[in-house]
Amino acid sequence: MEFEESGIGEECGVFGCVAAGEWPTQLEVAQVLTLGLVALQHRGQESAGIVTSNGASPPTYTSHKGMGLVSTAFAPEALLQLRYGNLGICHTRYSTTGFSELQNCQPFVVDTLHGRIAVAHNGELVNSRALRKKVMRHGVGLSTGSDSELITQLLALTPPMEELDTPDWVARIKNLMTETPTSYSLLIMFKDVIYAVRDPYGNRPLSIGRLVPISRLHKEDTEGWVVSSESCSFQSIGAKYYREVLPGEIVQISRFGVKSLSVIPRPEGDLPAFCIFEYVYFARPDSIFEGQMVYTVRQRCGRQLAIEAPTDVDLVSTVPESATPAALGYAQQSGLPYTEVLCKNRYVGRTFIQPNTRLRQLGVAKKFGVLTDNFAGKRVVLIDDSIVRGNTISPIIKLLREAGATEVHIRVASPPIKFPCYMGINIPTKEELIANKPEFKDIAGYIGADSVEYLTVEGLVSAVQEGISSFQKENVSSYKEVGHCTACLTGKYPVELEW
Amino acid sequence: MEFEESGIGEECGVFGCVAAGEWPTQLEVAQVLTLGLVALQHRGQESAGIVTSNGASPPTYTSHKGMGLVSTAFAPEALLQLRYGNLGICHTRYSTTGFSELQNCQPFVVDTLHGRIAVAHNGELVNSRALRKKVMRHGVGLSTGSDSELITQLLALTPPMEELDTPDWVARIKNLMTETPTSYSLLIMFKDVIYAVRDPYGNRPLSIGRLVPISRLHKEDTEGWVVSSESCSFQSIGAKYYREVLPGEIVQISRFGVKSLSVIPRPEGDLPAFCIFEYVYFARPDSIFEGQMVYTVRQRCGRQLAIEAPTDVDLVSTVPESATPAALGYAQQSGLPYTEVLCKNRYVGRTFIQPNTRLRQLGVAKKFGVLTDNFAGKRVVLIDDSIVRGNTISPIIKLLREAGATEVHIRVASPPIKFPCYMGINIPTKEELIANKPEFKDIAGYIGADSVEYLTVEGLVSAVQEGISSFQKENVSSYKEVGHCTACLTGKYPVELEW
Amino acid sequence: MEFEESGIGEECGVFGCVAAGEWPTQLEVAQVLTLGLVALQHRGQESAGIVTSNGASPPTYTSHKGMGLVSTAFAPEALLQLRYGNLGICHTRYSTTGFSELQNCQPFVVDTLHGRIAVAHNGELVNSRALRKKVMRHGVGLSTGSDSELITQLLALTPPMEELDTPDWVARIKNLMTETPTSYSLLIMFKDVIYAVRDPYGNRPLSIGRLVPISRLHKEDTEGWVVSSESCSFQSIGAKYYREVLPGEIVQISRFGVKSLSVIPRPEGDLPAFCIFEYVYFARPDSIFEGQMVYTVRQRCGRQLAIEAPTDVDLVSTVPESATPAALGYAQQSGLPYTEVLCKNRYVGRTFIQPNTRLRQLGVAKKFGVLTDNFAGKRVVLIDDSIVRGNTISPIIKLLREAGATEVHIRVASPPIKFPCYMGINIPTKEELIANKPEFKDIAGYIGADSVEYLTVEGLVSAVQEGISSFQKENVSSYKEVGHCTACLTGKYPVELEW
Amino acid sequence: MEFEESGIGEECGVFGCVAAGEWPTQLEVAQVLTLGLVALQHRGQESAGIVTSNGASPPTYTSHKGMGLVSTAFAPEALLQLRYGNLGICHTRYSTTGFSELQNCQPFVVDTLHGRIAVAHNGELVNSRALRKKVMRHGVGLSTGSDSELITQLLALTPPMEELDTPDWVARIKNLMTETPTSYSLLIMFKDVIYAVRDPYGNRPLSIGRLVPISRLHKEDTEGWVVSSESCSFQSIGAKYYREVLPGEIVQISRFGVKSLSVIPRPEGDLPAFCIFEYVYFARPDSIFEGQMVYTVRQRCGRQLAIEAPTDVDLVSTVPESATPAALGYAQQSGLPYTEVLCKNRYVGRTFIQPNTRLRQLGVAKKFGVLTDNFAGKRVVLIDDSIVRGNTISPIIKLLREAGATEVHIRVASPPIKFPCYMGINIPTKEELIANKPEFKDIAGYIGADSVEYLTVEGLVSAVQEGISSFQKENVSSYKEVGHCTACLTGKYPVELEW
Repeated sequence: MEFEESGIGEECGVFGCVAAGEWPTQLEVAQVLTLGLVALQHRGQESAGIVTSNGASPPTYTSHKGMGLVSTAFAPEALLQLRYGNLGICHTRYSTTGFSELQNCQPFVVDTLHGRIAVAHNGELVNSRALRKKVMRHGVGLSTGSDSELITQLLALTPPMEELDTPDWVARIKNLMTETPTSYSLLIMFKDVIYAVRDPYGNRPLSIGRLVPISRLHKEDTEGWVVSSESCSFQSIGAKYYREVLPGEIVQISRFGVKSLSVIPRPEGDLPAFCIFEYVYFARPDSIFEGQMVYTVRQRCGRQLAIEAPTDVDLVSTVPESATPAALGYAQQSGLPYTEVLCKNRYVGRTFIQPNTRLRQLGVAKKFGVLTDNFAGKRVVLIDDSIVRGNTISPIIKLLREAGATEVHIRVASPPIKFPCYMGINIPTKEELIANKPEFKDIAGYIGADSVEYLTVEGLVSAVQEGISSFQKENVSSYKEVGHCTACLTGKYPVELEW
Repeated sequence: MEFEESGIGEECGVFGCVAAGEWPTQLEVAQVLTLGLVALQHRGQESAGIVTSNGASPPTYTSHKGMGLVSTAFAPEALLQLRYGNLGICHTRYSTTGFSELQNCQPFVVDTLHGRIAVAHNGELVNSRALRKKVMRHGVGLSTGSDSELITQLLALTPPMEELDTPDWVARIKNLMTETPTSYSLLIMFKDVIYAVRDPYGNRPLSIGRLVPISRLHKEDTEGWVVSSESCSFQSIGAKYYREVLPGEIVQISRFGVKSLSVIPRPEGDLPAFCIFEYVYFARPDSIFEGQMVYTVRQRCGRQLAIEAPTDVDLVSTVPESATPAALGYAQQSGLPYTEVLCKNRYVGRTFIQPNTRLRQLGVAKKFGVLTDNFAGKRVVLIDDSIVRGNTISPIIKLLREAGATEVHIRVASPPIKFPCYMGINIPTKEELIANKPEFKDIAGYIGADSVEYLTVEGLVSAVQEGISSFQKENVSSYKEVGHCTACLTGKYPVELEW
Repeated sequence: MEFEESGIGEECGVFGCVAAGEWPTQLEVAQVLTLGLVALQHRGQESAGIVTSNGASPPTYTSHKGMGLVSTAFAPEALLQLRYGNLGICHTRYSTTGFSELQNCQPFVVDTLHGRIAVAHNGELVNSRALRKKVMRHGVGLSTGSDSELITQLLALTPPMEELDTPDWVARIKNLMTETPTSYSLLIMFKDVIYAVRDPYGNRPLSIGRLVPISRLHKEDTEGWVVSSESCSFQSIGAKYYREVLPGEIVQISRFGVKSLSVIPRPEGDLPAFCIFEYVYFARPDSIFEGQMVYTVRQRCGRQLAIEAPTDVDLVSTVPESATPAALGYAQQSGLPYTEVLCKNRYVGRTFIQPNTRLRQLGVAKKFGVLTDNFAGKRVVLIDDSIVRGNTISPIIKLLREAGATEVHIRVASPPIKFPCYMGINIPTKEELIANKPEFKDIAGYIGADSVEYLTVEGLVSAVQEGISSFQKENVSSYKEVGHCTACLTGKYPVELEW
Repeated sequence: MEFEESGIGEECGVFGCVAAGEWPTQLEVAQVLTLGLVALQHRGQESAGIVTSNGASPPTYTSHKGMGLVSTAFAPEALLQLRYGNLGICHTRYSTTGFSELQNCQPFVVDTLHGRIAVAHNGELVNSRALRKKVMRHGVGLSTGSDSELITQLLALTPPMEELDTPDWVARIKNLMTETPTSYSLLIMFKDVIYAVRDPYGNRPLSIGRLVPISRLHKEDTEGWVVSSESCSFQSIGAKYYREVLPGEIVQISRFGVKSLSVIPRPEGDLPAFCIFEYVYFARPDSIFEGQMVYTVRQRCGRQLAIEAPTDVDLVSTVPESATPAALGYAQQSGLPYTEVLCKNRYVGRTFIQPNTRLRQLGVAKKFGVLTDNFAGKRVVLIDDSIVRGNTISPIIKLLREAGATEVHIRVASPPIKFPCYMGINIPTKEELIANKPEFKDIAGYIGADSVEYLTVEGLVSAVQEGISSFQKENVSSYKEVGHCTACLTGKYPVELEW
């Protein structure tokens, strides 16, 4: 909940779909894409784009992009326009860099000598400056600031284009992967296939699902394949979780099915570096990463927190809704009763209150209703998933006290955030992070709590990895190693950063 | 949660504010009104309107109305335009009757011989047909189908208007109350006062709050008074709960404070008839009615349900979010663990999917993510707050079974709805209600559950009234009697219906 | 052209249509109404409204209103919604009085004891204050500031409504006409008829047309009847001019044809008072009033101006486009060549230039291109149709001089405006009118012209009436008298004004 | 007027401005650009874009693009955002090619190794296919179908980019001009200068103006420089016509003034090929090309037409508004009186009438009012500027006959259009052009006229060139040759077309 206020956010979600069987397909590909994108909306709310292809030779692509939520950007007319596709990819975007907003919308589509390709990207290339310079030195003008355009130009650039009948895109993708180590989960559409690519560190998630017939859910012949930043999008379109794209893997998805083409290795000795904050905050709780449900990991974090930082209070509660799994975990582990103390006013959103008014001071109080009778006269431990700047938990504590809580303790189900992310997450500057401020020494006093404690980095890592190891042993022999990026907590980045 | 799908809904919310102290006030009345209205948004999403008055002689009124949510209807320019008011009333509306949408927006404002009045109404006049005819027979043309216009014309009509210096609006309001027994909670603004009126049966809620200085929350001199359909709106504007308007009471709210002018009695022998469904479903859980928090009543309903209809299962869960208090109550009473099995996709809203497509069949599944690992291989009792048509709980049960629930039992924290409401609630026709269909005999089979049980009417009434009696004894000596309208469950309407 | 800048404008246009033949009609009544309204758009651009009726017992009315131009207010969905009507009336509106914009949109529709009526009004009731008080004294609340609502309530009010099978609306209309002498052209729709009414002074125009089959233009059986503020709207819907509604006349238009029901007389000795500015400026040049084409009248004004105020110059030109007929008349009478010196930039409209900038000073120059080669080195007489505030002709003169005109003389094809209008025209306050300012003595110097002369009132009246007399003799025996309202020029109002 | 209906249209307009004097400038560059663009709106209504630069090292560019008219695309916020520029270029666009609408909006902006450049283009590269292939073979992906992007990539591509302090853009522009002969008028903005470039054939227009202080119009020190597709835009921003960019010329415009850098020659023996249809139809009448006002040329065309194709009628008239200069010329030459027979309904625009209705048949009649009394009983010659498909003049003739014209003769002030344009004009396919249909043999019968005659190609060319020769002799010694592109009339294209 802190994140929303503090401007921390995932930068993108990607989604793709290929209809199986005879083409033109009976499957409403544009609708599957739209619903899939809606289910990834929490990963980006600034713009949305869909590109579909009819898969013919040469293919016809249709494309629509718009600012705002998927529901805003895709009016019925736009969907109608896209309806003839047999496959397609789409993208939802959080923040805007570069000099023209809509132009930065993905997927990015370009004509090359070998035909039109479309690219959707989640992540952030750590060496994008050097790569941009390289591309421009070759005489290419770059029209947006997006990594997505950069990737398309890199794909087009090397090795030199020749007029071939069968262009070797896979070779070009492998070449791209040697140029940039991380971070990217990519969907590349060319005519009748989608290449799903994950960087060798597996920093950003990417999962594959099978689109099964709705009415006969367990029938053998599938109706299509989908690929998504998060598996939470599968259920809303009637798809079943199939598997993750592995770190470094290039997967080809076509009407004929899913085929692993290659797995590009990491430098010797490097571990995978899947973003641990996908577990802590970004992902939807029903998504599955590395074989485990995000909700379960958060619950384990709550249990671990109860072990590391117990409290002597009357009840455990949550800052709804994201901290609820951790709060329930804390309650289970501690044996304290779980009680709701706040209810959310889901209509608050944007009301056009002028900035410098008395009511502004109410701040976050506008967003929550206080369930007074549930805690008046009692001692409360409130579980939050993170504290970024510290200026939003503070009014909540005040509300609870005014409504009669005798003590308010804060337990945070993740360690303090101290470092910037260069791999796709939008984090406030180092100076804005409460953990880097002098006030952090007396954080409880600063935010008005009776006590504040955080989960340790070790506690978090073990809560995350505990579930994976068992999963690995049983299921995925190819998962040789386990590792997570904790850079924002520890400052240890998975690759050396160039400037 | 069923309600949203089935079209059951509250028809209105009303809110008013009077600044205390010197006028022109320093209080941003228009902003208080807007925020207050946002907190009542769950009572109506189709249109919103605000009317402010500067309170002078003669007064200047400013007004803005718009379709959609408050945030849509009130752009910054609109607020700017309203900013000079010293008092005001506002309204949010659910459904549209009559022949012109925006025209039916409230508050309704008219010029009378005695000056301009504005009226905001929550409820539905049981004898509106007869009253419309009466008004029209007097030679008045009615430009909307709304009760709100009808009320203004009735106020203007009788007794005959004369050019008086001090029109007796209170006499007119009393006269109105003799013409129509229920249901209405009314705000009537005239120049510098708001009259807050509740019908003798108290069918619709209405509460008063004190607007205290934000920065010095407990200071003596208040900054204003507010009046609202629900007390949940008080917190978001920094107001404190003061008291309810009593059934039949006329309260005058002015810059000088709150004054009870009169309490119109019910016919001998009639009990109050506050809508029991405000507790069951409509109200926000942090609102206070009859001295008790709605959340607490819902929790008691869950406990009562556990007593009346126990189950032998592994875990208790909820259809988020409205059934959660009842589910927690059921868990506490039964001793079963409370576990989340579904998470909500808050971005679903309106996506423009054509009606007759394959994806339409997915229905409610689009709205929920399934937290598989929390219940796979287990027996679940799912608490819902009501079942109206039965066509939305069904796909949820299917989802849970497919994800591995071995048994799914449904317990409903309210009795079956069997009868229409003529007092302000939008309910499907008798034929559409599942409780009136032949399938109801085997409701479990029909919706695919292992068992289905409802709370009894007696159980509901006792769960509601249990909290009031203690409240009454301790606090409100004037509350002589307790009674609730259960017409939609029992067919017993508080007054005889005319046709 | 001056008018646009100076805020002078017509206040309304009304239009109605009744399909002839079998109902449900094959005629697209809503489309005829929309196109008819578009052709009256010059009479009001602030809002538009259409109400249609299916003509059944009881009738179903459909209604749509919106702010802005017809093309903005009537999206395809709105038209679709209205499509089942067999008859309908509509309205386009210029200015907004009263406290709620959209609410003031016409037609005004009300339910009365005798059923629903809809009223569209062009004009302004001279005694509206007294009438409002009368209505309110009867106990009626008035929800808008519009005369249109006032008229509907007056129609409903007296004589007392009784539950009759056949309400006598005509008696009610006659009664209304005794209550208010002017100014109004009214369309009143009740179930299956439209009553077209013009006040006894005939101050505002109203004409009837026959809607003939498009493909067989001269066939006998018509497809419907239309009634409009101006006959210019007939051609755009394939209708033929039939006749004017006479001053004081009540005409009933139904599927069975057009029937004159009554002609209410003026007080003895009073002449008709058709607004002379309809000829001078407001009406479209192809409209017909009193048997003569507006363009022809304007041309005659130009000829008369050449007689009254000749010039010794090289060429005659126009401020496009409204002054062109007068300029051509001036050229014909004077024998001077007619030459264009300005071309209009039709895209200027609203560009969002901040008020206090250097470019603001360019003013009207943005709107016109100067055709330098046509007049450089020459003496020009520029014909304008009126000068209201004098601040727009001034930059044009400057433009012409800078481009090389050696002399610029201004001749105005109407007399100076000196008095306010209380009968439906929006005119700046007396103080803003250039003719009432001290500068008017040296108007030429003030605006930078070599000379300025106006048409005399006598010249204007004779140019207007010259065409009517011949028309009368030949065609309309019932037209006993000729007279025009020249109040804004002379201060002589057709009726005594009450305050 | 025919053009609008038939889809013939100019494809673009370009405009640029550089503030002179100290930077940051006091000149509102964004406002000058917006007003300049509005004055070019007739050259493209589908989208508009502005890019401004602060001119610093490195420069900051701000950019805004939008669909629709300038007034729609540039809301006040957009202008506010652009306000800090010291120079800028902008573009208005007619038609959409390529696969994403807004993406095709110009100016096109790219980052190159040498910094960011912005390009606005009017015209169409005759060899764009070959050039696209060349660029793509180099490994560049092209994200739009626009020539503008192609030009930026060509500029970036060759000769190879090196990291220089002072990149030689002029050499790159010269290189571009050797790659493609025509047609283009280009504005290229780089940091603090605008390069204005016209192809060696001078196919598209481009003029330079001096922005003088508004209040002291003749002062020596200018406030800036502007460059525009048409000089008509100068007046609306207070600029004075300076000169044309010559065919093949590269002009540098900076805060220090205007400097001619180079003139690239045409192949030996080739004449200039300025589009003759700019004179006939596209340009605004107050624009100046080759030293003469467009209006004057059109008038000469009318005179020439009267010589080539006289008629024995009572009056000459025009299809307003574009044919009016020719009609006045015809009247002057023939001695026949000039009379208006049609007036335009300027509000028609888009009304949402469904396609297959009775009213559709009314067609163009909706757009015009008939001034019956001006021509009833008379013989009319109607001057039109061109006939493309012949389906719009036809209903006009019918209207005039029905209103009483005894004869209707058509004279067209340009020759028949027979061939497609590949140099920037949107013309219907060869098959759709009336001049290529069998019906053309009896064109008068086909459109219902008493006679139809066209201006000859020779007549048109002499009417156009007559004014230039005298201008050349007197003013521009560098204009060695005169020539015009008449390809759409004669099939003689200025360069050989590649396929």
